Amino acid sequence: MNNQVLDLLLKRRTIRAFKDQTLTPEQYQTLTEVVRQTATSMFMQQTSLIHVTDPEIRTTIREVCNQPYVGANGDLFVFVVDLYRNRQILATQGLATEQMHGTDVFLQAVEDTVLAAQNFTTAAESLGLGAVFLGSIQNDAQKVVTALQLPELTFPLLGLQVGIPDQKPQLKPRMPLSLRTFTNHYQPDYQLADFGEYDQVVQTYYDLRDANRRVDSFTHQVGTNLTKSPAQRRHILDILHAQKLCLH
Amino acid sequence: MNNQVLDLLLKRRTIRAFKDQTLTPEQYQTLTEVVRQTATSMFMQQTSLIHVTDPEIRTTIREVCNQPYVGANGDLFVFVVDLYRNRQILATQGLATEQMHGTDVFLQAVEDTVLAAQNFTTAAESLGLGAVFLGSIQNDAQKVVTALQLPELTFPLLGLQVGIPDQKPQLKPRMPLSLRTFTNHYQPDYQLADFGEYDQVVQTYYDLRDANRRVDSFTHQVGTNLTKSPAQRRHILDILHAQKLCLH
Repeated sequence: MNNQVLDLLLKRRTIRAFKDQTLTPEQYQTLTEVVRQTATSMFMQQTSLIHVTDPEIRTTIREVCNQPYVGANGDLFVFVVDLYRNRQILATQGLATEQMHGTDVFLQAVEDTVLAAQNFTTAAESLGLGAVFLGSIQNDAQKVVTALQLPELTFPLLGLQVGIPDQKPQLKPRMPLSLRTFTNHYQPDYQLADFGEYDQVVQTYYDLRDANRRVDSFTHQVGTNLTKSPAQRRHILDILHAQKLCLH
Repeated sequence: MNNQVLDLLLKRRTIRAFKDQTLTPEQYQTLTEVVRQTATSMFMQQTSLIHVTDPEIRTTIREVCNQPYVGANGDLFVFVVDLYRNRQILATQGLATEQMHGTDVFLQAVEDTVLAAQNFTTAAESLGLGAVFLGSIQNDAQKVVTALQLPELTFPLLGLQVGIPDQKPQLKPRMPLSLRTFTNHYQPDYQLADFGEYDQVVQTYYDLRDANRRVDSFTHQVGTNLTKSPAQRRHILDILHAQKLCLH
């Protein structure tokens, strides 16, 4: 099976080096229109998009992400979980707003936000652009909230740096589907040995990519990434609560 | 700007009526491979996919969703937030697993899951298939957890019914971008009047679509959907905690 869409989705790479050029107005219009047309939970459209062009804010977000390409060449966007807009609609109608502070509607808005971020990226890639999702804005989400003047009931979920690729990275090898797809029931019997072959594939990938970088297996990366996160990332629940999200 | 990808993303419709035919093995393989290649936070690949073929489980999920097309014609999938797999990898290495119970890594896994669900859907649509996201599995997530035998540190986030479309719905009109996209700072000054024109457009859409259905504006739907959710949806945080997710 083959078509332009599958080709794009099956061969996608994260791009982290961009040429010194920003989106054209036509590209910007097309990409935001794709966000607008993305599927949305219960038609509630609970996501907003912020285009970050101000050099000071770009610097702030670069420092939060601790990655030199953030807010540098290309365009920087922040995808925002947005329950504020519909809360305002409820409030001006004199209706109860308690539900907006719950986990249910927060997850719906998170879904709206991530669906839109993926479609924006797919559309950008179809135009020959490249992109990198910036989960690293969670290194200090409060700083991003302040910089973008985000009101309560909003949350900056994902950043995205997009632009004309200035690198051609290799496809990164992924875990075999046998470990990630199931029929009818989840199979919880993982043994470390199940990941042995995949660990080898990942090590070979790093080895070929950059002789100067330490070769790292998947299971070793799990041990590194999932045991010592930056201190601020341990306060995300506090930040959500300060934004009056996920209170119940 | 135009290409096959943009065409798909800009004209997508949710499909809720399917012909009595399931995915071919080639289609299944292609769609799951797209899931495998989807971007993933920190390379941690924290999502799993369950193909629900068992008639009893399909009935259970249909009842949870309370929609006759769920688990009927076509194929039913559940996209699962999966921190269990990497927790097992940590545990078998004798490493600390406390971080796996935090909100930070939960949101990362949610992102992985929704990115994969969107790419699966885009790929399906490129093959002439249609799909509907089933956020409605949250009507009783605990029942879905039990039916799919999901272990702790997993959570059924989104269902998806996919198949050959047996309807040609109209494009549903979306909120103007001026209310959803911003530059540098969020603009929190919404007035109900800002939504007046859009309310008209939505009402006209319903009026033309189905003369027998009550014509409903956007702001009225916000009032309906976001004030009285099903009782079980108010316990999602409890279910997450029971799965040992988002504990801190």
